[in-house]
Amino acid sequence: MKRQINVGLIGHKFMGKAHSHALRDLPMFFDPGVEPVMKTLCGVGDDLDETARRYGWLSTTQRWQDVIEDPAIDAVSILTPGKLHCEIALAAAANGKHILCEKPLALNSAEAARMYAAAAAAGICHMVNFNYRRVPAVALAKQLIDEGRLGAIYHFQCSYQQDWPLDPACPYIWRFDKTVAGAGSMADKGSHVVDLARYLAGEFAEVSAATEIFVRERQQRAVTTDDAAVFTVRFESGALGLFLTSRMSAGHKNSLAFEVNGSRGSLAWNLERLNELQVYEAGGSVAGFRNVMVTESSHPYAAAWWPAGHVLGWEHTFIHQYYEFLKGIAEQRQPAPSFLDGLRNHQVLDSIERAAAEKRWIEVPQMKEANA
Amino acid sequence: MKRQINVGLIGHKFMGKAHSHALRDLPMFFDPGVEPVMKTLCGVGDDLDETARRYGWLSTTQRWQDVIEDPAIDAVSILTPGKLHCEIALAAAANGKHILCEKPLALNSAEAARMYAAAAAAGICHMVNFNYRRVPAVALAKQLIDEGRLGAIYHFQCSYQQDWPLDPACPYIWRFDKTVAGAGSMADKGSHVVDLARYLAGEFAEVSAATEIFVRERQQRAVTTDDAAVFTVRFESGALGLFLTSRMSAGHKNSLAFEVNGSRGSLAWNLERLNELQVYEAGGSVAGFRNVMVTESSHPYAAAWWPAGHVLGWEHTFIHQYYEFLKGIAEQRQPAPSFLDGLRNHQVLDSIERAAAEKRWIEVPQMKEANA
Amino acid sequence: MKRQINVGLIGHKFMGKAHSHALRDLPMFFDPGVEPVMKTLCGVGDDLDETARRYGWLSTTQRWQDVIEDPAIDAVSILTPGKLHCEIALAAAANGKHILCEKPLALNSAEAARMYAAAAAAGICHMVNFNYRRVPAVALAKQLIDEGRLGAIYHFQCSYQQDWPLDPACPYIWRFDKTVAGAGSMADKGSHVVDLARYLAGEFAEVSAATEIFVRERQQRAVTTDDAAVFTVRFESGALGLFLTSRMSAGHKNSLAFEVNGSRGSLAWNLERLNELQVYEAGGSVAGFRNVMVTESSHPYAAAWWPAGHVLGWEHTFIHQYYEFLKGIAEQRQPAPSFLDGLRNHQVLDSIERAAAEKRWIEVPQMKEANA
Amino acid sequence: MKRQINVGLIGHKFMGKAHSHALRDLPMFFDPGVEPVMKTLCGVGDDLDETARRYGWLSTTQRWQDVIEDPAIDAVSILTPGKLHCEIALAAAANGKHILCEKPLALNSAEAARMYAAAAAAGICHMVNFNYRRVPAVALAKQLIDEGRLGAIYHFQCSYQQDWPLDPACPYIWRFDKTVAGAGSMADKGSHVVDLARYLAGEFAEVSAATEIFVRERQQRAVTTDDAAVFTVRFESGALGLFLTSRMSAGHKNSLAFEVNGSRGSLAWNLERLNELQVYEAGGSVAGFRNVMVTESSHPYAAAWWPAGHVLGWEHTFIHQYYEFLKGIAEQRQPAPSFLDGLRNHQVLDSIERAAAEKRWIEVPQMKEANA
Repeated sequence: MKRQINVGLIGHKFMGKAHSHALRDLPMFFDPGVEPVMKTLCGVGDDLDETARRYGWLSTTQRWQDVIEDPAIDAVSILTPGKLHCEIALAAAANGKHILCEKPLALNSAEAARMYAAAAAAGICHMVNFNYRRVPAVALAKQLIDEGRLGAIYHFQCSYQQDWPLDPACPYIWRFDKTVAGAGSMADKGSHVVDLARYLAGEFAEVSAATEIFVRERQQRAVTTDDAAVFTVRFESGALGLFLTSRMSAGHKNSLAFEVNGSRGSLAWNLERLNELQVYEAGGSVAGFRNVMVTESSHPYAAAWWPAGHVLGWEHTFIHQYYEFLKGIAEQRQPAPSFLDGLRNHQVLDSIERAAAEKRWIEVPQMKEANA
Repeated sequence: MKRQINVGLIGHKFMGKAHSHALRDLPMFFDPGVEPVMKTLCGVGDDLDETARRYGWLSTTQRWQDVIEDPAIDAVSILTPGKLHCEIALAAAANGKHILCEKPLALNSAEAARMYAAAAAAGICHMVNFNYRRVPAVALAKQLIDEGRLGAIYHFQCSYQQDWPLDPACPYIWRFDKTVAGAGSMADKGSHVVDLARYLAGEFAEVSAATEIFVRERQQRAVTTDDAAVFTVRFESGALGLFLTSRMSAGHKNSLAFEVNGSRGSLAWNLERLNELQVYEAGGSVAGFRNVMVTESSHPYAAAWWPAGHVLGWEHTFIHQYYEFLKGIAEQRQPAPSFLDGLRNHQVLDSIERAAAEKRWIEVPQMKEANA
Repeated sequence: MKRQINVGLIGHKFMGKAHSHALRDLPMFFDPGVEPVMKTLCGVGDDLDETARRYGWLSTTQRWQDVIEDPAIDAVSILTPGKLHCEIALAAAANGKHILCEKPLALNSAEAARMYAAAAAAGICHMVNFNYRRVPAVALAKQLIDEGRLGAIYHFQCSYQQDWPLDPACPYIWRFDKTVAGAGSMADKGSHVVDLARYLAGEFAEVSAATEIFVRERQQRAVTTDDAAVFTVRFESGALGLFLTSRMSAGHKNSLAFEVNGSRGSLAWNLERLNELQVYEAGGSVAGFRNVMVTESSHPYAAAWWPAGHVLGWEHTFIHQYYEFLKGIAEQRQPAPSFLDGLRNHQVLDSIERAAAEKRWIEVPQMKEANA
Repeated sequence: MKRQINVGLIGHKFMGKAHSHALRDLPMFFDPGVEPVMKTLCGVGDDLDETARRYGWLSTTQRWQDVIEDPAIDAVSILTPGKLHCEIALAAAANGKHILCEKPLALNSAEAARMYAAAAAAGICHMVNFNYRRVPAVALAKQLIDEGRLGAIYHFQCSYQQDWPLDPACPYIWRFDKTVAGAGSMADKGSHVVDLARYLAGEFAEVSAATEIFVRERQQRAVTTDDAAVFTVRFESGALGLFLTSRMSAGHKNSLAFEVNGSRGSLAWNLERLNELQVYEAGGSVAGFRNVMVTESSHPYAAAWWPAGHVLGWEHTFIHQYYEFLKGIAEQRQPAPSFLDGLRNHQVLDSIERAAAEKRWIEVPQMKEANA
C-alpha cells in the first residue's frame, strides 16, 4: 500500500476546479509513488460544500488557517488571490506542509524571497504552478534543447495574447485595478512567458520594456493596469528575447506561443495547438519545419494517456504538474519549478516594471540558491 | 438528491479506461439530471481488481452475466470485442438495462437489426458510442448545417488515416485476421466515417468501393483484412461523397478529417486539431476559410469546461457522450446515436463490402424506425 | 549565336496571355539551347493587333492556316477551343511543325490517337501543356518518388476544386453546355488531376466514378455538364486513388491538391501554396510532416530565378514548360508530357465517363508507345 | 500613342534582374499612362552586354554619369551599393530625372535629407523601392485599415528572418563588414520592417533596441555587423510595436511577417505565403482568423493578372512598384513611398542604432514635408 498524502486546497473557483480535477484524475494515469487524498477544500461562498461534493473532497473549511493547522494535512495548494500567497505560504512552511503555489508566486520579489527562504529552511517540497512546462510538447522542446539539437540559442520569441476585454463595454473587474491586481497583462501572462523563457532559454541578464493602457476608462472607472506590454531581453547566454503580453489582441483567445532559434535548428509551439511542436533541424536539401504530434509513447507524459494521435487538452498540464509535485514528495527531492524559480520570475518582472518606468535597459539581479 | 444510476462496464482495457474516466470526470462538469455510480467493472485478467480500484469502481466480476443479472444495475456499457456485442446487448435489453455500446454496433446488419429490435421493444435507452459527434467543433458543424448556413450540401469528403502498421515488421495481431476482426481499416475507421457522414450529410443512397492489402504477409502469416479502402457515395440528397480509410498512410497518427461543401459555404475539421473548425461562408470581397476555436461558452459543451481558448482533448468526447446517454435516461427519451443509427451504419458498411466485391455501385437499403 | 525558333501561337485570350508571357520571360531566366522568336499571334477579334503589340509578337493573322503554312514557323502552340485541336495539330504535324498543345489534348481518345500517330510519324516534338508538372514543388515530389524515398506508393489522393459558379445566378456560359464543352469539372480539372496521378503514381488500371449537376438550370437554360465528379482508381501498381473535381466547392478558388502516401513516407501539395511541399519520412521519435519551401537552388527550376525564399507564382509553370519544349527541340529528343501522355489521359477520362454511365468499375485500356 | 519614358538602370546584378524583369513585363499587364522604354543598362563587368541583350536593354554603359547626363533619359533607377545612392541621386535630380531608388535610401539620415531636399526642389517624381507595399495582400491590409475595419491600432508585430549565414563556415562577405555594409540584419531587413510599420501603423514616436553578433569570426575575420536585432516601439498613435530582424533564424528563408491588432480586428501576413491575408473581425459566435486568398479581381493589382486563385510571386511586387512610379510620372504627381518616406525610415533606423548604443528609449525626430 502506497503512502497517502493528504492534500488541502485553498481556493475553489476556476483554479480550484482545475486543481481538483487534476487530483481526481491523476491516480487513473500516473503513479508518483504516493497516493493523494483529497482531504480538505477551503473556500468562501455558499457553493463550497456542494462544490466539494462534486469535486470529491472529504471535508471543507472557510478558514485557510484550518488547513495549515490540521496535523493530518501533508500538502497544501495555494490558489488564492496573490496578496494572500505570502502569508499562507509562510504559515504552511512553518507547519511543515509541502506547498504547490499558483503563479505568480507573490506580489513582488521581496515577498517571494521571504517565501523561498522559509520553504528552503523548512525542508519542504515547494513548487510554483507554471503548468505550461508540463505540456508534453513543451517538455519535448526542453529535452531537444538539452540534448543540444538546437545548438546555441540565438533568439527566443514569445507572446501571450488574449482578447477578452477587447470590447470597451466589457464590465469593470478587479483586473483593471492596479491596487488589487498589481498589473494587467504583465501579471497573469508575464509570469508565464518569463517562466517559459527561463525554462527554455536560460536566465535573463537585462531587459527593456513598455506598457500601454488602450482603454483608459471602463464603466466610468479608470483602468490602471496595463492592457499590453512589450519587452526585449538579453539573456545571460547572449541570446536575444522578444516578448508581447496582451489582453487586447483581437482574435486571440488563449494564444501562448514561442519560437526558439538556435545555431542548429528551431522550435515553435502554440498553446492553442498544444499537442504539436514545430521542429526545424538544419541540413539537407528538403529541410523544413516539421509538425510533430507530441503524442507518441516516447514523448514526455504521453505514454500514460492514450495511443499515439489521441490529443490532450489544457487541463492535463495540471495533472502532470501534480505528478511532479507528488513524485518530489515521494522521493524526498525538490521538484521544479521551485519557489526559487518563482522568486527569479519576480525579479525579472520587477526589472521589467522598472525598465518601463525608467525608459532604459535594466540589469536583472540574480538571486542564487538559498544554500549556495 | 438526484436519482442514482448504477453503471456496469463490460471491458476494462483501452476503452474501459476511456469510459471509466468519462464516468469519473462527468459529475465535476455536467449535470445530466441523474448521478452515475461506478458500480461494477467486468473484465478478464489479473489486473482487474487493481484497475477497478484505480479507476474508482465499487466492485468487479469476470462474468458479464453478473452485470446483466444484477438487479441493482441500471445501465451497462458494452466494450467487448465485437463478436460479443449482440449476445450481451440482447441479454441486457431483456433485463431492462439501458445500453451504451461501442461501435461498430455488431458484426453485421443482421445482428444489428436484432439488437435494435430488442432494444426498441424493451423501451430502454440505447446508444452507440460514435463519440466524434460529441467533439464541440463537430457538434457546432452540425448546428451550422441544421441552421442552413451551408445551404444545400454538395459534397462530403472524409478520411480516417493512421499508420501504426506501416512497418512490414509490425507484429501480427488479431486485426490482420479477417476471421477475428471482420475487416481492417473498414472495421474500426469505416464505421466512424460513415457515422460522421450520416450525421452531417444525411443518408446514403448508393456506394462504390475498393479495398487493398498492401502488406500481404506479416511474420509469415497471411494478412486477410484490408489495409485501406476508398469509397464513393451518392447521398439521398444528391450530394456526392468521397472516403478513404487507411492504416497505412505514412505520417498520419489519428487523422480523422472531413470537409463538407454546400451551396452557401463549407466546413472543414480534423481530429488532430479537434478544437478548431474551419468555416467558409460565401460573400464579400474578403472571404476565406476562418479558423474558429470552438471553446466559447456559446459553443456546444464548451461552457461546462474552461474559459474560452482552453482546449479540450480526445477523451472529452466520452464525457459528452455519457452526458447525452444519462440525460436520455433522466428525461426518458432516446438519445442519439441510437441502435438504429448503429444498424444503418452496418447497412452502409455491408453495402460497401458488396460494392467492392461486385465491382459496381450498390444501393444502400434503408431500414426505417422500428415503430414506423 | 543560338539557333532561332520561330513560334506561332494560335489563341490570344487567357491562355494566349499566359503563353505569350512565358515566351517573353523565358530568355531572361533560362537557356534551352535555342532562342524563341515570337513570330505570329493568331486570333480572332478587334483587339488582336493591339494585343500582339503589347505582348511582343512580330505579326498577326486571323487564320490559323497561315501559321501552319508559314515556312518560317518552326513551332506552334495550340490554345484554341478543344474542338479545333485535332484539325490544327494534324495540319501542323503534316507541315513538320513542333507542337505544344493545350490540355486536354483533344475531344476524346479517338482524336487523341490520331494526333499522337500523326505527330509520332512526323518526327516532331509534341507536348501537352500539363503545366503543373513544372511547379518546382511538384517536380521535386516526382524526384523524391523516383529516388525511392516514399517506397512503394499506397494511395494517391487528389482534388481540384473551384467555386466560380457557386451562385446559381452566375450567368450561363458555354462551359454549362455539354455539346460545346464536352464535360464540366471533368473537362478542365479532370485532365489535370489524371495527369498528376499518372506522373506521380503511374498508370491507371481501373476506375469507378459518379458525377452530379447541382444547379440544373441557369438563366432558364438547362445545365448539361457536371458540376462535380468523384472517382476512385486502382493503379497498375496496386495503389488506390481517390479524386474529386468540382466547380461548386465553396471557398476554393483554384485549389488543386494532392497527397501521396507510400511505404516509407508521404508528400502533400496544394496549388494555392505552390512553393511548399509537405514531406513526411518515417522514422525517429520527432517525425512529422515538414514544410519544405521549394525555392532552394538545388530544387528543380529554382536556381534560374531568385535567392532561396523568394516565391514563384502560377505563371512560372508556363515558362518552365516552354523551357522543356524548346530544350526538346534543341536536343532533338521528345519532351514530356507528350501526345502519348495526352492520349493516355483521354483513355482514362473516357473510362471514367463510361464508369459513371454504367455504374461499375471499368478497366482502362493501355495504348502503348507508337513504335512499340 | 502613349508618351514614352526612357529608363536608365544603374546596377545589373540581382536587383538589376528584378528591375529589368519588371520593366519588361509591365506593359503586358498594366497601363500606367506612359510607356517605359528600356534605354540604358549601366553596370560593371564582362557580362554587361550579354546581360543587357538577354534582359532587353537597348544600350549599355559602365559609367553612371552617362545615364544621368543623357538628355534622352527620363527616369533612372538606382540599384548600386548604398554608398553611391546619394551622389547619383543628387546628380540625377539636378538633371531633372525621375528617380526610383533602392532601399535603404542612403547611408544615413543626413544623406537622405539631402536627397529628399534635392528631389523635392527639382520637382521630379522620387520613390524608394519598398516593394512589399505592393504585395496585393499588403495593399489590401492597408485598405482595410484605412477603411477603419480594424479600428484603432493597438499593436504591430513584425519580424524579418532569414538563415543564409547560419553555418559558421559560411564564407566571409561584405555584409559582415560594418565599414562596407553599415549594418547587418538592420540594414537590409530593418528598413523593410520599418517601412511596413510606418505604412500600416503610422509614425514612430520612440524606440528601444538591442543587437547581437552570434558568430563573431568567420574565416578568421571579425564580423562587425549585427546578426540580429530586436526593437520595441511606441507609435505616435500610442500603439506598441515589436520587431525582430535576423539573418540567423534557423528554418526561415525569407520570412517577412507582420501582425497588426486593432480595437475591432486583426490582420496577419507572411511573405512566404504572400497571396494570403489572415483577417479577423470581432463579433459573432463563429469568429476566427480567415484566410483570404488575395487574388480576386476586386483586390489591389489582382485584376491585371489572372483569374481568382492564380497566385503571384515575389517578383510581381517590382512590377507593381514600377506601375506606381510610372503612373506618378504620367499624372505628374508624387508616388509613394517617396524620398521623404526614405528619409523618415532612416530617422527611425538611426534612432534604433542610438537606442541600442545608449541602452535607453530614444525619441524619433519627425522631419516634416519639405514644403510644410
